[in-house]
Amino acid sequence: MTDSVVASFTETKDDRLREVIQSLTRHLHAFAREVRLTQAEWEAGIRFLTRVGHITDDRRQEFILLSDVLGLSMLTVGINAPATEGATESTVFGPFFVADAPEIPLGSDIAQGAKGRPCWVSGTVRSTSGEPIPDARIDVWEADEDGFYDVQYEGNRTAGRGWLRAGPGGEYRFWSVRPAPYPIPDDGPVGDLLTATGRSPMRPAHLHFKVTAPGYWPLVTHIFRAGDPYLGRDAVFGVKDELVVDFAEHSPGTAPDGRSLDDPWTSIKFDLVLAPLTNR
Amino acid sequence: MTDSVVASFTETKDDRLREVIQSLTRHLHAFAREVRLTQAEWEAGIRFLTRVGHITDDRRQEFILLSDVLGLSMLTVGINAPATEGATESTVFGPFFVADAPEIPLGSDIAQGAKGRPCWVSGTVRSTSGEPIPDARIDVWEADEDGFYDVQYEGNRTAGRGWLRAGPGGEYRFWSVRPAPYPIPDDGPVGDLLTATGRSPMRPAHLHFKVTAPGYWPLVTHIFRAGDPYLGRDAVFGVKDELVVDFAEHSPGTAPDGRSLDDPWTSIKFDLVLAPLTNR
Ligand SMILES: [Fe+2]
Ligand SMILES: [Fe+2]
Repeated sequence: MTDSVVASFTETKDDRLREVIQSLTRHLHAFAREVRLTQAEWEAGIRFLTRVGHITDDRRQEFILLSDVLGLSMLTVGINAPATEGATESTVFGPFFVADAPEIPLGSDIAQGAKGRPCWVSGTVRSTSGEPIPDARIDVWEADEDGFYDVQYEGNRTAGRGWLRAGPGGEYRFWSVRPAPYPIPDDGPVGDLLTATGRSPMRPAHLHFKVTAPGYWPLVTHIFRAGDPYLGRDAVFGVKDELVVDFAEHSPGTAPDGRSLDDPWTSIKFDLVLAPLTNR
Repeated sequence: MTDSVVASFTETKDDRLREVIQSLTRHLHAFAREVRLTQAEWEAGIRFLTRVGHITDDRRQEFILLSDVLGLSMLTVGINAPATEGATESTVFGPFFVADAPEIPLGSDIAQGAKGRPCWVSGTVRSTSGEPIPDARIDVWEADEDGFYDVQYEGNRTAGRGWLRAGPGGEYRFWSVRPAPYPIPDDGPVGDLLTATGRSPMRPAHLHFKVTAPGYWPLVTHIFRAGDPYLGRDAVFGVKDELVVDFAEHSPGTAPDGRSLDDPWTSIKFDLVLAPLTNR
């Protein structure tokens, strides 16, 4: 059976597509044979995928969530990570990126109504050889203190996301809110899978980054908060030690940019180190 | 990475679910590692599955179609086939079954407006030990001479499908139309996959059967038409030699049930042999 299906793909014009689909066929069949998949289980699988498809829309991507909880997303990140020593580690993209988020000036606030303790984020975008990367594009996105991204609320509000350009010395800085741990959306089929398998939907607190600059490998990563109780059991397997950072807590007062705060605030410093395209 | 994900499922209460999901994880990861799946290919996979989900509705099941063209459906049929010598072979269920099709009296016509040459179908439902199985439920469904099932037309018409009960001696008979080869629906993502891989969407002509009776394994099968040009390259790998049957062609005249036909007509005789539940 498997040989016939693999052979049916022989005429595929694109060599890479042929390789991928033939390998997928072999592994999918090996799975079904190993567990001796029953007809009822096959039907349950069809129903499950149908639910995943039907809950997915412009603001919710349940297939990415499924890939995330099966560790496939993080495995793909690992397979494609640049091998360059000293570059910032990558982690999962996640389902909450929005392509047309607003540009914000260097030093301004991405919160835009997202609730949470103010958090000053700063650092330098540089290459593995130490040179600053001026004008690098930095996309950031995060959940609010209740653990929700803007796209999870009604009303198409944009909050807790935006993009900025690094300054002439590669420096970047912006206000955000201190990230909080949150459950991945668990009111759909992926949530049902986590429940049935006794797994928690929680992710440790983090801030998402996507950093791009001409001549460098794009970097998709998170900053995690040191001490978070979920660091050792992230629902999507995204934690790497190098990405866990101490968040400094401050009493009310004046921030580095001169902003005066009546309430406690937080700061983090984190350099974003990109690998040159040639060094792969 | 794979070990962490497999370990995350350790607390699954249901032993069988744990076995299936851990095996799926291992094989999915082995596939991604074997082909060194790129980020762009992972994204293309997410987009593909999203399209499959969004085109699926009450009348179109693109996930079943996908499973069919990857040979997973037929593999599952093979894994679960009763090992009883002499039982009718099984084949794929396909995406065109409708659960609430109408009951028809023994000997009447399921065409109900489906176009095609009239076809008289008859035989006996019996067990592998030779005893007739009275009152067995026989669901039948088929495409018309243009290659379309009723559910592929606008307007919720029911045609070319229905179910009947075998008579006291296990006998069954009904009118239908002579089945024609047809392309599986190829205007969606699965069709795009077939095009990209140089595969034909065609299936050889067939009539679908689902037969159930208390005390027996349900039988899901097809009757294929001998001589069909697509028998050797069914898009869903469903053909088995034992299911290929000679269709008798007749000149205008009187049919076995006394019906008088002004045009040519066709007949087939096919016994449906079920395996007792105990013999597995
Ligand atoms: Fe996140
Ligand atoms: Fe069919």
